[in-house]
Amino acid sequence: MKEFDFIRQYLYRQQNDKNILLGIGDDAAIIRPQPKHDLCFSSDMLIKNRHFFADVAPADLAHKVLAVNISDMAAMGATPRWVLLSVALPQLEKTWLTEFSDQFFSLAKQFDITLIGGDTTKGDFAFNVTIIGELPEGQALRRDAAQVDDDIWVSGRVGLAAAALNHHWGKVILPPNIFDICEQSRLRPIPRVALGKAILPFAHAAQDISDGLAQDLGHILKASGVGADIFTDYLPTLPALYDVLEKPLVYDYTLAGGDDYELVFTAPEASRNNILQAAEASHTSVTRIGKITQSRHLNIFDTNGVQIQLNSLGFDHFG
Amino acid sequence: MKEFDFIRQYLYRQQNDKNILLGIGDDAAIIRPQPKHDLCFSSDMLIKNRHFFADVAPADLAHKVLAVNISDMAAMGATPRWVLLSVALPQLEKTWLTEFSDQFFSLAKQFDITLIGGDTTKGDFAFNVTIIGELPEGQALRRDAAQVDDDIWVSGRVGLAAAALNHHWGKVILPPNIFDICEQSRLRPIPRVALGKAILPFAHAAQDISDGLAQDLGHILKASGVGADIFTDYLPTLPALYDVLEKPLVYDYTLAGGDDYELVFTAPEASRNNILQAAEASHTSVTRIGKITQSRHLNIFDTNGVQIQLNSLGFDHFG
Repeated sequence: MKEFDFIRQYLYRQQNDKNILLGIGDDAAIIRPQPKHDLCFSSDMLIKNRHFFADVAPADLAHKVLAVNISDMAAMGATPRWVLLSVALPQLEKTWLTEFSDQFFSLAKQFDITLIGGDTTKGDFAFNVTIIGELPEGQALRRDAAQVDDDIWVSGRVGLAAAALNHHWGKVILPPNIFDICEQSRLRPIPRVALGKAILPFAHAAQDISDGLAQDLGHILKASGVGADIFTDYLPTLPALYDVLEKPLVYDYTLAGGDDYELVFTAPEASRNNILQAAEASHTSVTRIGKITQSRHLNIFDTNGVQIQLNSLGFDHFG
Repeated sequence: MKEFDFIRQYLYRQQNDKNILLGIGDDAAIIRPQPKHDLCFSSDMLIKNRHFFADVAPADLAHKVLAVNISDMAAMGATPRWVLLSVALPQLEKTWLTEFSDQFFSLAKQFDITLIGGDTTKGDFAFNVTIIGELPEGQALRRDAAQVDDDIWVSGRVGLAAAALNHHWGKVILPPNIFDICEQSRLRPIPRVALGKAILPFAHAAQDISDGLAQDLGHILKASGVGADIFTDYLPTLPALYDVLEKPLVYDYTLAGGDDYELVFTAPEASRNNILQAAEASHTSVTRIGKITQSRHLNIFDTNGVQIQLNSLGFDHFG
């Protein structure tokens, strides 16, 4: 199959987006931005054996490649609109391509996202998505906007993806029913776009949790010049993990395990009801896990007020 | 070196761009688009041993990674403004990183382009650049805009990069002085941004020549539903190639050799003077090589009017 046939067959799909003046197929796509909106840009590269196992199902891979980028838009409070997808594949294999592109477009459609460009080349499973989102002019959930005394919130549940990953690595053994739930979180994270948009008027800082809660919250603290006290036992996770794993391991997974793509965000105490209403309106659970302080340190406490030391702060892309 | 230190040290550079509300360092960058402008988006992935030799100098690689993307903007008549760069490297090596990033930022600066994001990860030399450019509202050099009787023009010189590449492959042997000139074209293509912008009001269709003149012109013909007659002996190339290579080989390189990143474009006969003035104003040579026809075929003739058959139409990314 020729490259251009591939692009035509798998990546040209019906689009209905009044802001797209020119879609896939030229040297570049052309977008007419909406008035009174700012645009957000983010890009993520995923590499075989680094971000996914070599035997990953193409549909799971497609989901992850797109979802991690959508998640960056959620973390800004932005509405994802357009993506460019670059793929390097060892060969063009029909079943693989069909399963990959079906799931890619299914997820894109779910979020009203249109593919406007990208690249295809021969290579050993490398993927890059650039995503473009819209924000109401002047609004955004920035890392540098946390304020002292803000509540710290986390969406959904964290640590599940890390538990599944450690099961794959043979470091722990999860019972099948628990593994299935964790594996679903690892393979099919749900970007929190609706929540991000709903909290945009009320929240201060936000970040998605890709490298581990402690590390990602750390980015907010550093950018904002503040500190935080958080309480591990408040961290939302799968309660059954406490039944099958030693407590320090659950702490490690919830604090330093990445790949859940939940949001960690801060908001003033006065906005608690707004945040809870935003969570309900977006059908997303949220949990308060601590407070922003002026200490410039991240202090992590268990229920007894004992400070916790992490073995590692989270995922280092070159570690 | 930790990933974030790497990003900070090599990729955070002083920027002065009033349209950037938030640069590198958050989940996403934020841009405020200029009123009365459309935005152009393009993305290219470059993979080791596919798009560059494993022993390429980091500065040459940096140049190519960025230049091929800038070239897509030139082909739209757009002004390149912002890029996102994703890099997968086997390790973080100081000298390599310094040479790569110095040349990357040097070329970016030359074109007033700001790096607003991207990704870094461990991997075997894969690069992806997404570029964003601006167009005056409603204007663009699109592939589907060629009209019957348009002149066909080519910028600069073509076939040099292919000659150098075939020398590397041992298929031909070029004398050192000629090889040097061709190798410079291959390693350091000059994106024709000034020309693209200058011809924007006068030209109809345009495309940059990455996969070979015949194939890339073919995209214009197909998208526009037209044909073309072109004359190989009119194709601008390094005249010395005719001295050292068989004529059919020069034809192959100029017609089917990619990687020169010149522009092929069409414009009405009535605009000939405008095109020549635009070329002069942008310090770029342009050559008329043929005409758009209604035949729906690309016919290639030599000086004697004999039709030429190409061995291959150009580069297939999965060939």
